[in-house]
Amino acid sequence: MHSSSVHDYLREHIRTVPNWPAPGVQFRDITPLLQDPKVFRVLIDAFVHRYMDKAMRPDVVAGLDARGFIIGSVIAYELGVGFVPIRKKGKLPFTTVEETYELEYGSATVELHTDAVRPGDKVLLIDDLIATGGTMMAGKKLLEKLGATVMEGAAIVDLPELGGSTLLQTVGQLPLFTLVDFAGH
Amino acid sequence: MHSSSVHDYLREHIRTVPNWPAPGVQFRDITPLLQDPKVFRVLIDAFVHRYMDKAMRPDVVAGLDARGFIIGSVIAYELGVGFVPIRKKGKLPFTTVEETYELEYGSATVELHTDAVRPGDKVLLIDDLIATGGTMMAGKKLLEKLGATVMEGAAIVDLPELGGSTLLQTVGQLPLFTLVDFAGH
Repeated sequence: MHSSSVHDYLREHIRTVPNWPAPGVQFRDITPLLQDPKVFRVLIDAFVHRYMDKAMRPDVVAGLDARGFIIGSVIAYELGVGFVPIRKKGKLPFTTVEETYELEYGSATVELHTDAVRPGDKVLLIDDLIATGGTMMAGKKLLEKLGATVMEGAAIVDLPELGGSTLLQTVGQLPLFTLVDFAGH
Repeated sequence: MHSSSVHDYLREHIRTVPNWPAPGVQFRDITPLLQDPKVFRVLIDAFVHRYMDKAMRPDVVAGLDARGFIIGSVIAYELGVGFVPIRKKGKLPFTTVEETYELEYGSATVELHTDAVRPGDKVLLIDDLIATGGTMMAGKKLLEKLGATVMEGAAIVDLPELGGSTLLQTVGQLPLFTLVDFAGH
């Protein structure tokens, strides 16, 4: 498939759920992409084809809790590299570094095992969707605390109007790769 | 590798964290299995080799939130079947069925999208670890509410002394496949 038709093909299989989790929000539900074996394969392969190039190959794939685990682990397996989970606070048993970030109401904290990556590792950071970019920014900071370099952030969906992708690329200086974008949210 | 050496190889890469999440608990941490590319591959392939046999091939792989996502999605991709997430309550945006089960203190509820499986689908149900078996039993009930058949439950680790694997196989009538067991918990 051409990348334009991959975009359209994947976009057609994302379900929009109106007014969830709050009135006025159009939630982009990626579960139908996973459920159909062909769509799932086209989705994963769009990432794998990009990162199997020698220059783009990461040393490690890090996935953000919890939908980032679903695609991140497959990409890592296919590339033949390790997978490390970045988790919501309180889920990882070993010693961790942590990072707190602001949400619309309150804050959230994510953690990473201190031995998850080594100094100098090139890490690909994966989530399902980029909205305000807060989680991905926090994930990047965690990996950098351990001396790793985040070569790129990748997600299935970008919601550009929420500003996260712009923030990550400017303030965060993080290159991004996404497959589908939705104007409106 | 012979299956006995796969067992030992994987067991050596599981980290035991004492007194987590509570005093007296020996937590079996599977993250080191994911982090090393070879161990990760041996782990996933132990499942794939079993379920690629025609007689054992599922129509769908269902993964339990959240560590079950990490291995379940890769197994689904490798088998060329769809992946569906069973999630903690409040995470799935579309219409769901739900199932509540008892924990040591209080209870927990898991959900599944009503269109995640079709009546008659043969489902492989995946988690990282079987302890009391409560989550896997709830997952099985959810899939059966939608008319699917759970052909087998699979996990990396079994903690047989907690009784979950016995309960699932007797009361739950669910065949189980696990790679590593730990006596003591």
